Amino acid sequence: MDLKAKIPVGVLGATGSVGQRFVSLLAAHPWFEIAVLTASERSAGKRYADAVSWGLDQPLDSRLGALTIEPTRPGLPCQLLFSALDAEVAGLLETELARAGHVVVSNARNHRMDNDVPLIVPEVNPDHLALAARQTHGGGVILTNPNCSTIGLVLALAPLHRSFGLTAVQVVTLQALSGAGLPGVPSVAIHDNVIPFISGEEEKMESETLKVLGRLTPDGVEPAPIAVSAQCNRVAVLDGHTECVSVKLARPAGEMEVRAALAGFSAEPQRLGLPSAPHPPVALVDERDRPQARLDRGRSGGMAATVGRVRPCPVLDYRFVVLSHNTIRGAAGGSILIAELALAKGLIPAEKLPLATTARR
Amino acid sequence: MDLKAKIPVGVLGATGSVGQRFVSLLAAHPWFEIAVLTASERSAGKRYADAVSWGLDQPLDSRLGALTIEPTRPGLPCQLLFSALDAEVAGLLETELARAGHVVVSNARNHRMDNDVPLIVPEVNPDHLALAARQTHGGGVILTNPNCSTIGLVLALAPLHRSFGLTAVQVVTLQALSGAGLPGVPSVAIHDNVIPFISGEEEKMESETLKVLGRLTPDGVEPAPIAVSAQCNRVAVLDGHTECVSVKLARPAGEMEVRAALAGFSAEPQRLGLPSAPHPPVALVDERDRPQARLDRGRSGGMAATVGRVRPCPVLDYRFVVLSHNTIRGAAGGSILIAELALAKGLIPAEKLPLATTARR
Amino acid sequence: MDLKAKIPVGVLGATGSVGQRFVSLLAAHPWFEIAVLTASERSAGKRYADAVSWGLDQPLDSRLGALTIEPTRPGLPCQLLFSALDAEVAGLLETELARAGHVVVSNARNHRMDNDVPLIVPEVNPDHLALAARQTHGGGVILTNPNCSTIGLVLALAPLHRSFGLTAVQVVTLQALSGAGLPGVPSVAIHDNVIPFISGEEEKMESETLKVLGRLTPDGVEPAPIAVSAQCNRVAVLDGHTECVSVKLARPAGEMEVRAALAGFSAEPQRLGLPSAPHPPVALVDERDRPQARLDRGRSGGMAATVGRVRPCPVLDYRFVVLSHNTIRGAAGGSILIAELALAKGLIPAEKLPLATTARR
Amino acid sequence: MDLKAKIPVGVLGATGSVGQRFVSLLAAHPWFEIAVLTASERSAGKRYADAVSWGLDQPLDSRLGALTIEPTRPGLPCQLLFSALDAEVAGLLETELARAGHVVVSNARNHRMDNDVPLIVPEVNPDHLALAARQTHGGGVILTNPNCSTIGLVLALAPLHRSFGLTAVQVVTLQALSGAGLPGVPSVAIHDNVIPFISGEEEKMESETLKVLGRLTPDGVEPAPIAVSAQCNRVAVLDGHTECVSVKLARPAGEMEVRAALAGFSAEPQRLGLPSAPHPPVALVDERDRPQARLDRGRSGGMAATVGRVRPCPVLDYRFVVLSHNTIRGAAGGSILIAELALAKGLIPAEKLPLATTARR
Repeated sequence: MDLKAKIPVGVLGATGSVGQRFVSLLAAHPWFEIAVLTASERSAGKRYADAVSWGLDQPLDSRLGALTIEPTRPGLPCQLLFSALDAEVAGLLETELARAGHVVVSNARNHRMDNDVPLIVPEVNPDHLALAARQTHGGGVILTNPNCSTIGLVLALAPLHRSFGLTAVQVVTLQALSGAGLPGVPSVAIHDNVIPFISGEEEKMESETLKVLGRLTPDGVEPAPIAVSAQCNRVAVLDGHTECVSVKLARPAGEMEVRAALAGFSAEPQRLGLPSAPHPPVALVDERDRPQARLDRGRSGGMAATVGRVRPCPVLDYRFVVLSHNTIRGAAGGSILIAELALAKGLIPAEKLPLATTARR
Repeated sequence: MDLKAKIPVGVLGATGSVGQRFVSLLAAHPWFEIAVLTASERSAGKRYADAVSWGLDQPLDSRLGALTIEPTRPGLPCQLLFSALDAEVAGLLETELARAGHVVVSNARNHRMDNDVPLIVPEVNPDHLALAARQTHGGGVILTNPNCSTIGLVLALAPLHRSFGLTAVQVVTLQALSGAGLPGVPSVAIHDNVIPFISGEEEKMESETLKVLGRLTPDGVEPAPIAVSAQCNRVAVLDGHTECVSVKLARPAGEMEVRAALAGFSAEPQRLGLPSAPHPPVALVDERDRPQARLDRGRSGGMAATVGRVRPCPVLDYRFVVLSHNTIRGAAGGSILIAELALAKGLIPAEKLPLATTARR
Repeated sequence: MDLKAKIPVGVLGATGSVGQRFVSLLAAHPWFEIAVLTASERSAGKRYADAVSWGLDQPLDSRLGALTIEPTRPGLPCQLLFSALDAEVAGLLETELARAGHVVVSNARNHRMDNDVPLIVPEVNPDHLALAARQTHGGGVILTNPNCSTIGLVLALAPLHRSFGLTAVQVVTLQALSGAGLPGVPSVAIHDNVIPFISGEEEKMESETLKVLGRLTPDGVEPAPIAVSAQCNRVAVLDGHTECVSVKLARPAGEMEVRAALAGFSAEPQRLGLPSAPHPPVALVDERDRPQARLDRGRSGGMAATVGRVRPCPVLDYRFVVLSHNTIRGAAGGSILIAELALAKGLIPAEKLPLATTARR
Repeated sequence: MDLKAKIPVGVLGATGSVGQRFVSLLAAHPWFEIAVLTASERSAGKRYADAVSWGLDQPLDSRLGALTIEPTRPGLPCQLLFSALDAEVAGLLETELARAGHVVVSNARNHRMDNDVPLIVPEVNPDHLALAARQTHGGGVILTNPNCSTIGLVLALAPLHRSFGLTAVQVVTLQALSGAGLPGVPSVAIHDNVIPFISGEEEKMESETLKVLGRLTPDGVEPAPIAVSAQCNRVAVLDGHTECVSVKLARPAGEMEVRAALAGFSAEPQRLGLPSAPHPPVALVDERDRPQARLDRGRSGGMAATVGRVRPCPVLDYRFVVLSHNTIRGAAGGSILIAELALAKGLIPAEKLPLATTARR
């Protein structure tokens, strides 16, 4: 990409947990520059630094901290919007913004399973972006990334599905606290505890996985014909979802073939050299006690999935552990990579995006 | 049981994590009274209170704290011994003690899979106690309980296997810190982390489960013909192993039948009214976010398994979550219940056990 | 106390963190029996078990779980009420209930510093109960216990103040999560962190300590003339406030005298044999690494303070560490002990309290 | 500094917790290049990557991981050595290495209080480097940094001592797990707990603070005449020591003056532009709930101290909270800054240090 200037973007719902990640990841992005931050009416009009309860260890960029928060509504002064809106409001607001001509790349769950909305993991199903052409919004479009626990899973499943076909997947997750947003899980609930339930999470993993791994047809996405069982747990880890996976393959494969498929996985974001693309997208590790949330979640800036403990499964065919950063790869970073992909593939014509020179102060 | 006096018992390896649990659970036991505590040569001769780094929230009983630690070797002044010995030394020492006429009820892994050694979960396979008759020790005998993560699992599997037959089991564990003994897992390793590996644990779960659920034959125990896959994780919880399980049944069953089998489970320890027997052995809970380690591990004094989230599995037949206290039901309490069973069934003739009157001081 | 039957009591704000402790501690109380549980209008009419998010490891008593929640307002069918109301509503409601003739023993902060309201730690200032006679409510009365962090502190200070006089106190707290109520501190805020601030806590410790240690005069309580500095931190511990204290004494004392004063402390609740009185109220421990929150918070059913590491201070005179259970001794249990004291001293005439026989269902 | 090539350095005790930090911080240092890593005889001969249990979230540099571990003894092929040796062996080994001509910059406690050994915090007492001239080692020299908890404290105390004089300091620490090295604190000991004792820590804080703030005289360092009381606690935080401090000043000062002294603090490392010098060395923050370990420990790459909650103290004069990263500023980073200072001031003549070109492999 040869941009004359950075493209101005907005972050919707910028004060929440995922919103803060968007702000942090976009603060020094080579293509994008934050021009507007929105939040609820209650926060609108305040300086971002005053309204946000900043919880990341990287300090808040001072220019961004000084931005005045806008309410989330059409008329925002930049075409490309990243949505970290709460599901309670995202459904209508994102539709309205797309109708007003905005490109909305959303982390919210509301539109993910809509027939005409691409649900994208750029390494896995970049071709699904074409779905967006079916959207009848007035010039705008909605693109979505899957749920945080689904993204890590499909990054590991995609090379196996591509190479051998998958027929069944069992996954048990150990999910991080930051996935629950703000205020999220009370400390007295999770301290010295495991909570073996996350509302709606298993259903999302079981349905979204099939859409992402599905096949684009003239009628939309045909879900992949895989039996998926997800059991989700919350554990006392700040960031990084650990997932224990067992898979059944459509055709026999040796352990070395399975490892080679994972280790050799590369895809369009890597080939296009997108700024947020991890190299490699799936890191295969050999240590018998890895991946570990605290030690591996930051790999490739938090954008890579780490897979370890690949070994045969006495019940299905193979089992392994996959770990990914839930608020970077699994949310804000995943959305940003979709925007980069859409831009690089011309779905979002860069020339139509007003440049950021005027957004600077 | 109508005992004229309590039976004197010894605890081998009494300063470790499981040893402390034995001491705590036996401090006020209606049948047993601790007469001797052993530890390594380094601790022998010290007062127990001075040698142990007591880590339980119940205070150490003052009479027991004042006992002088003995070295672990034959000649101990009571026939019934509970072993919390380290696996490095348990193998030879337990054999030697059995040869010297002691009844050794052991939590160590060394003899569990021996052909002539019963591996017992009293609610599940009390008939396996008969195996002990094959032991050729000089009057003594070795009885064992399974690994902590296996005990909780088989308590939940047993009623299903009995009612419907099991053909496959997938289990992913989230195991507590206390399971690793002392000093165990360094805090810097597990803080803000999940460790997806516990040395030897998966192998133990996969083999011990089959022996416990197996059939006693004239040639020994024939392992149950079930495919078992275990994936084990360490999480930052003090006590209580959480296990996410999926099972395949040999014959079809509705969800209500499955629930009824679990909720209705009762067995010999309950019928015999053994002092440590939980009522019920498997507590079936309906709340969608239970069992939880901190809230459910103490059920029935830590001796019951709690099962929740019973629901169909898209890959196998049913899935659920089982939780049990790893150092009570899964270790010391499990051994004590075995001794109670053996005594109640006459395998250990109470009249042959010297009474505790002389053991008091 | 020779009661013909238990006294019926109510718990106001029964669904919160302290409310649950009241319910748990009163479930098997020898003098009191819960007749009514109240909560906000939103919960009124529901079964308690359905409205509460029970977070204690002791299971909820089934009789109490079946009680129907009442709204908090005058006309409740028992005279003695324990208040775990939120400070936002406690001020007016407690006054109104006292006017209606109720004896309100409150954990809320609102009336603690009122001139005519006793602020009581039964071992420290039982004579302050007499203040209640000044209240002009219509037959009713309000009694209060101090803030959770203050109670542990004054239990340790009282014997020193009595024996040597205190002129200055420095305290730095490491406070547990349960002190923040429900939902309390978000897990993402405290995980892998210390928060060096608790709103209003330092002010409460600095003022309440002086009232509790103060002298009852005809004009009310004259605050003790002690300089107190409190610095409060939140740490990732479930229960148990740890406090590092340095004190300056009015008259010189050797370390042995200081230790003797602490170890020998006993007071009216112990002499009266009140059911919830700890023996001793202050446990002095010698191990160099105690008290520890997890190991010592349960001492005497959570009602004792544990003091350790008594040693000279290079800046003031002596320093030590005190630990107490913040929701038992520091809240619900502290209130219950006040009610026991008031009853035993005749401030609440037992004969005027309708007996509980009719309250049973 | 205008270096023709990087200076080769060694890290002694490279597999421990502080050793790993040295390796991580030196991996991309502009002046230094690791030429040799040492560890115990047991690890010598292994590849570093195989011998170390790497516990930092930054991945281990692959060139350094491939280095072969040397035993720690004279004859190492570079003059400048950073010591993360255990105190059990550091005393003799460091002396021996200095005698062999090495410049040893040590984090070990053994030589800190030696009369002729500089104990340096570069912003506080850079002049103390001159002490090294008294050392009679054969060309070599030992330089030391204080204990991790002392460094954060003196960074905050130095500007106050310089501006107003200090006469008394009370400090209570909440110290991180990584300060205990490897394996360090067992997880079962600290989980859901506070440990109010760290062996030797209070003594170190009370003595080292006085040496660092002391005055260099012809006879050595005269300790600062300040009464210091330290109370040390271990809490469940990975990195970052939180310290609650109260100080008494020699001359009266208003709160604004105190704040100005802290905020305006700058010193020789900043003026010399040393690569690891933080800007500013003490960050003064205004938010009422800061500094927080997880959010502030990384400030200026972990080299700055963060001070917050400056306010009057009812017992002494002022109180505040200071936070610093214990294994960066408080250990490895502190040593590296000393080496940078010594080099920039010519104490270590760069021309005498063999350049690194030959050290590469």
